[in-house]
Amino acid sequence: MNEQRPLRPKARLPRGFKDRDQAELAAEARMLDIIRAVYGSYGFQALETPAFEYTDALGKFLPDQDRPNEGVFSLKDDDGQWLSLRYDLTAPLARYVAENFQNLPKPFRRYQVGTVWRNEKPGPGRFREFTQFDADTVGSASPAADAELLMMFADSLEALGLKRGDYVVKVGSRKLLDGVLEAAKIAKEKRGIVLRAIDKLDRLGADGVRALLGRGRKDESGDYTQGAELSSEQSERVLAFVAPETDGANADSGAVLERFARAVEGSETGAGGIAELREIIRILSITGYGPERVRVDSGIVRGLDYYTGAVYEAQLSFPVMNEAGEIVVFGSVGGGGRYDDLIARFTGQAVPAAGISVGVSRLLAALRARPGAEVFQTEPPIVVLVLDKTGVAECMRLAQQLRAAGFAAEAYVGEAGMKAQLKYADKRGARIAVIEGPDERANGTITLKDLMLGAELAKATENRAQWVKDRPAQQTVARADLIPAIRAILRIQGP
Amino acid sequence: MNEQRPLRPKARLPRGFKDRDQAELAAEARMLDIIRAVYGSYGFQALETPAFEYTDALGKFLPDQDRPNEGVFSLKDDDGQWLSLRYDLTAPLARYVAENFQNLPKPFRRYQVGTVWRNEKPGPGRFREFTQFDADTVGSASPAADAELLMMFADSLEALGLKRGDYVVKVGSRKLLDGVLEAAKIAKEKRGIVLRAIDKLDRLGADGVRALLGRGRKDESGDYTQGAELSSEQSERVLAFVAPETDGANADSGAVLERFARAVEGSETGAGGIAELREIIRILSITGYGPERVRVDSGIVRGLDYYTGAVYEAQLSFPVMNEAGEIVVFGSVGGGGRYDDLIARFTGQAVPAAGISVGVSRLLAALRARPGAEVFQTEPPIVVLVLDKTGVAECMRLAQQLRAAGFAAEAYVGEAGMKAQLKYADKRGARIAVIEGPDERANGTITLKDLMLGAELAKATENRAQWVKDRPAQQTVARADLIPAIRAILRIQGP
Repeated sequence: MNEQRPLRPKARLPRGFKDRDQAELAAEARMLDIIRAVYGSYGFQALETPAFEYTDALGKFLPDQDRPNEGVFSLKDDDGQWLSLRYDLTAPLARYVAENFQNLPKPFRRYQVGTVWRNEKPGPGRFREFTQFDADTVGSASPAADAELLMMFADSLEALGLKRGDYVVKVGSRKLLDGVLEAAKIAKEKRGIVLRAIDKLDRLGADGVRALLGRGRKDESGDYTQGAELSSEQSERVLAFVAPETDGANADSGAVLERFARAVEGSETGAGGIAELREIIRILSITGYGPERVRVDSGIVRGLDYYTGAVYEAQLSFPVMNEAGEIVVFGSVGGGGRYDDLIARFTGQAVPAAGISVGVSRLLAALRARPGAEVFQTEPPIVVLVLDKTGVAECMRLAQQLRAAGFAAEAYVGEAGMKAQLKYADKRGARIAVIEGPDERANGTITLKDLMLGAELAKATENRAQWVKDRPAQQTVARADLIPAIRAILRIQGP
Repeated sequence: MNEQRPLRPKARLPRGFKDRDQAELAAEARMLDIIRAVYGSYGFQALETPAFEYTDALGKFLPDQDRPNEGVFSLKDDDGQWLSLRYDLTAPLARYVAENFQNLPKPFRRYQVGTVWRNEKPGPGRFREFTQFDADTVGSASPAADAELLMMFADSLEALGLKRGDYVVKVGSRKLLDGVLEAAKIAKEKRGIVLRAIDKLDRLGADGVRALLGRGRKDESGDYTQGAELSSEQSERVLAFVAPETDGANADSGAVLERFARAVEGSETGAGGIAELREIIRILSITGYGPERVRVDSGIVRGLDYYTGAVYEAQLSFPVMNEAGEIVVFGSVGGGGRYDDLIARFTGQAVPAAGISVGVSRLLAALRARPGAEVFQTEPPIVVLVLDKTGVAECMRLAQQLRAAGFAAEAYVGEAGMKAQLKYADKRGARIAVIEGPDERANGTITLKDLMLGAELAKATENRAQWVKDRPAQQTVARADLIPAIRAILRIQGP
């Protein structure tokens, strides 16, 4: 273990992590602010828990061992206790609620935005650090709490500029699925394999799932997946529930619920799920969230073991280009549901809870990919070039005047000459370079270079010498006309 | 190592960490947004680096060992490489600049807000996780870069609502101090002990520092601190520089610089520092940042070994109440300076850099303690109580209408009765409870409870029965008058 370290370390980003730049951060900050404002208007309170929790509080020890699960970043503190970085925001919420239960308003409704860490093998698009944004209601089993979360999710997407029809929030219930299995007399021990099969519906289609519910299925690579060995009648009953051919996109939730009620007939669990969904839909119809915004859907499963009642998923329905250049429907940007074991690990007492989680990076990617979402673009800066060192203060005053007029503006504060300064303005993505050299200062004028127009003209003009001579992208204006001249350039370049 | 873990873990916050609530988070978010907007208007770009860096990139291995410094949280990754959580935002900046140097605009100006971690012994007010907010200019030795940072710091404080006179940004130079030591012929090896003595000026006064520069000093507890053993002439020369009796609060920077120039006479380092400060002050006077905003001050030392040129410190001059209930001047809320060894660890090449760092929690505390800073307070919510379960949807619609009118409003989504709901509204800090029970719905009315007025009256009224009977804090209004009635209550209660 006594390896020699090089005297000069290599500057490199750790594997599975990333640096994020202005454009992404500004867009994400704006997106999170908008969602925060909606959640706050519903009276959800912000909460921030620390990055670390005691490993035992996270429930992340390996079974029958005193060593933390490898999936979490863990270390021992000075007291010899294991600490782990949070891998989601739900486990810290559980700790917080259990620790402060007496003093919290009940139900306790909080949102949290924060970084989470996974000590997993990184891959393309799979990072070991990312942002989560959760809102949860703890201490209410009422369908009103579900309805509120669904309304809030829909409101957030609209506050972000999405139109009706661009998105839909789907609601299902784990109790319905359990009810179908119960009504079809499918043995409890087959529940896991059946749920896993249903979860593949999007990818494999009804026939693929049918095979997995029956004998099994061989995939393209020749690998064979063992099936659930249901009878054909059982399989069809499950399929009729999760992959119905009748429900249109704007199907009336009442009619869908009727069909569900028949599918779970004879199951008490199923009947309970139906009653809850009916009440959620009743509230939503009175508050004006019809099927064009929130819709009952049987295909929502959302993971395997965590949820106990209603489950939600927000989906975007507009087309975007994926990394392979294909036009695809964007799909899920978040979801959630009901769960009951939140603080039972600490107190032994089941507390009803429900939450929604925004898929921050996915939603941001969707909004940035959406044409016309200018609100998620950063205004390029104006750079004041400095021709003579003694004039730097005047150049800085000029930048200050531009800022006072509402522009992002800066004077060049480096020590290089004109050519390097123009390169700087280019790397900064500046739209306009402003020049107030000694000549301009003597004449009371300012020279403006339209960098975007200049770049376009340079591309279009074959005779570069001619272009340089004409300098069509450069103009000199009276100092008093500076702000109007800049506004004119930006209008011409702008949308 | 095979200790038994209890089956049910205790829900407890890890030592040295804290949970943060709505009021603090909302105020902090607003403060950071305002500063971000100022920095962005100067063309500084946001950057986010990951929480982890390779330990060697942070330079945090113990001397002559392959084990990370105990002050940082470290763990080994799957590849057997040591990773550490960042303990500041400067070391990650160094890694980022060294890794991406070719592609960055030069100078590279970025700001970063982020959590940092220190694996140190926690204490009162000393946490192991906190937020830093840095802005740095990398790749320019020009005084224009210093001037820009100082302007930006002053602009940020004013954007946060501070008035001229509430704050001052002080600028000094490490070169001046070095120049004084050089001019006073103080041996290089005494530099550290002299700097440490000067750093105690605020706490010990000139006489205390004089003792530490000479033979030494015994403190109240009787502990003796060895002095620097300077001659009395040397001590007085240093003291005349750092603790002058002549400079008033609004002393002209030109006059102060004259005095400094005499103090460092004969020292080349000192002369360089004077020239840089003169240019910074020249720029600031042209851009309108006079001594009431940015002022030359010899007392600014800012740590011991890191800074190489100009140093800055922002101080608040208004009185606040400290934890002991005493009225004190708030003091420093951030600072920074010039440093040259940023990326030398990676490249061997010194790159000039300068930065400012906002003391996030200190500045926030100052703004929250300041009377009249309403912008940092959260608007209390309106709670719609639910008397009958069947009316919950209508109550939620009512909350929705209140949100549409601009209020933070929620309908109670729990399952408890009236008494528990009023307790809930109280714990939520609600100002108004809105009741639309079956009676109200039948009559087209709404009942409003003014919870603040109610609480005050309950305190003032001796005869509780009488108070309950009169219910002066409760009124029933026509549904159409709901919004005006709420506005009337809020105006009455408001500032």
